[in-house]
Amino acid sequence: MSEPSASTLDVLLRLAAVIESRKGGDPDKSYVARLFHKGTDAILKKVGEEATETIMAAKDAAAQPSPEHTKALVGEFADLWFHSMVAMAHLGLSPADVVGELARREGLSGLEEFALRKIQTRQADDRGAI
Amino acid sequence: MSEPSASTLDVLLRLAAVIESRKGGDPDKSYVARLFHKGTDAILKKVGEEATETIMAAKDAAAQPSPEHTKALVGEFADLWFHSMVAMAHLGLSPADVVGELARREGLSGLEEFALRKIQTRQADDRGAI
Amino acid sequence: MSEPSASTLDVLLRLAAVIESRKGGDPDKSYVARLFHKGTDAILKKVGEEATETIMAAKDAAAQPSPEHTKALVGEFADLWFHSMVAMAHLGLSPADVVGELARREGLSGLEEFALRKIQTRQADDRGAI
Amino acid sequence: MSEPSASTLDVLLRLAAVIESRKGGDPDKSYVARLFHKGTDAILKKVGEEATETIMAAKDAAAQPSPEHTKALVGEFADLWFHSMVAMAHLGLSPADVVGELARREGLSGLEEFALRKIQTRQADDRGAI
Repeated sequence: MSEPSASTLDVLLRLAAVIESRKGGDPDKSYVARLFHKGTDAILKKVGEEATETIMAAKDAAAQPSPEHTKALVGEFADLWFHSMVAMAHLGLSPADVVGELARREGLSGLEEFALRKIQTRQADDRGAI
Repeated sequence: MSEPSASTLDVLLRLAAVIESRKGGDPDKSYVARLFHKGTDAILKKVGEEATETIMAAKDAAAQPSPEHTKALVGEFADLWFHSMVAMAHLGLSPADVVGELARREGLSGLEEFALRKIQTRQADDRGAI
Repeated sequence: MSEPSASTLDVLLRLAAVIESRKGGDPDKSYVARLFHKGTDAILKKVGEEATETIMAAKDAAAQPSPEHTKALVGEFADLWFHSMVAMAHLGLSPADVVGELARREGLSGLEEFALRKIQTRQADDRGAI
Repeated sequence: MSEPSASTLDVLLRLAAVIESRKGGDPDKSYVARLFHKGTDAILKKVGEEATETIMAAKDAAAQPSPEHTKALVGEFADLWFHSMVAMAHLGLSPADVVGELARREGLSGLEEFALRKIQTRQADDRGAI
């Protein structure tokens, strides 16, 4: 039981594993498989699109704060990060690389080096149950 | 009782706490304080800028895979996510909201309810070591 | 021949008139009428999308110059300007306002030979502000 | 024989000539020379930036119509088109290529009365392709 809750706890890495598992999948059955099938430009186009939609939703939320606008904004950020993760997977990266870079920049690197190594190990071991 | 290893969300939440702590800070001393001081449009402009730079770096990495291009791309994704988090903080959101939405969409919600509660508890307890 | 030549010569203004005429049109019969019907966010989303596609096509054209890449890039710029003009129309503007602003900034405002001569002189001198 | 008034394309072509003349110019003396000197990514980054700023200004103008918001929006569209033209020049294109493509698509290519009449008829019929 050395590998306990961690792999179930890390939502982004699990989502990345699901995305990864869609590579080569049936484009008719999976949205992500369809994006991989279409290739780089289709994936990056979505990143640009979601950035635009995030910015517009943020303008709405800033101008007229409301639960509806907040909910829509959370949805747009989720879309932006989700499609970022599809782009990462397409180009051989994991959110662990990006979060690791964020940690490194913010001076978290020392404290987290060990933890991130563990995460990467877990990633390597991860056979994508979901 | 041993602290579990950091998840990507742990790292993001600690970074979010640092970002949050810059609200009202001296614009001359902190880049994030300066962004908050400038307001919504300046922050969103950065999100759009970083999305563009991510897309260009991804085009380079796709056209000519190399360690340099990969490293640059990781940096751009980190910039995009970092400025997303500044925008989230500016509009009263946390990466936990966004990651929670991603989890919910992917059908992880049931399995994760407990895990997310744990995360949220940790968040509440977090007194920002960094 | 009361019709002055300008209106026949000016492609952008004629195109703007066609776009304008689609307001309130049948969304099932016209792409532009459909955009107007969907409203601000749908129109602006297209501007963002086309900007992203222009940037990607420009990266391709810069990395591997070819007639195909050039043709694709012209198409993307046309898409970007076209959807800019739909957004202008939606918000009560004409390309004449935008071109007028460009002229004003560059000191072309008179649109006269005199201004042109001045520009050509400045060009030769390479002392222009832009 | 009175000179016909300048078309929007005339103005854009004159501006394009000014931009073109900045190639190889002193980066310290001209903003456009500086952009050319920095190269493709710096130029495309500006296109992305200005698209984002246009979208934000359009959101403001749509939410709260005012002369100030309209003026700001015109300025952003001008910035977007201006930097589009710098990108065109950098990649060997002219606004004539882009406006020509717009004309071609809309069936205006001949620039003749016949085409215009057809367009006007189509406009009246509201059967246009666009």
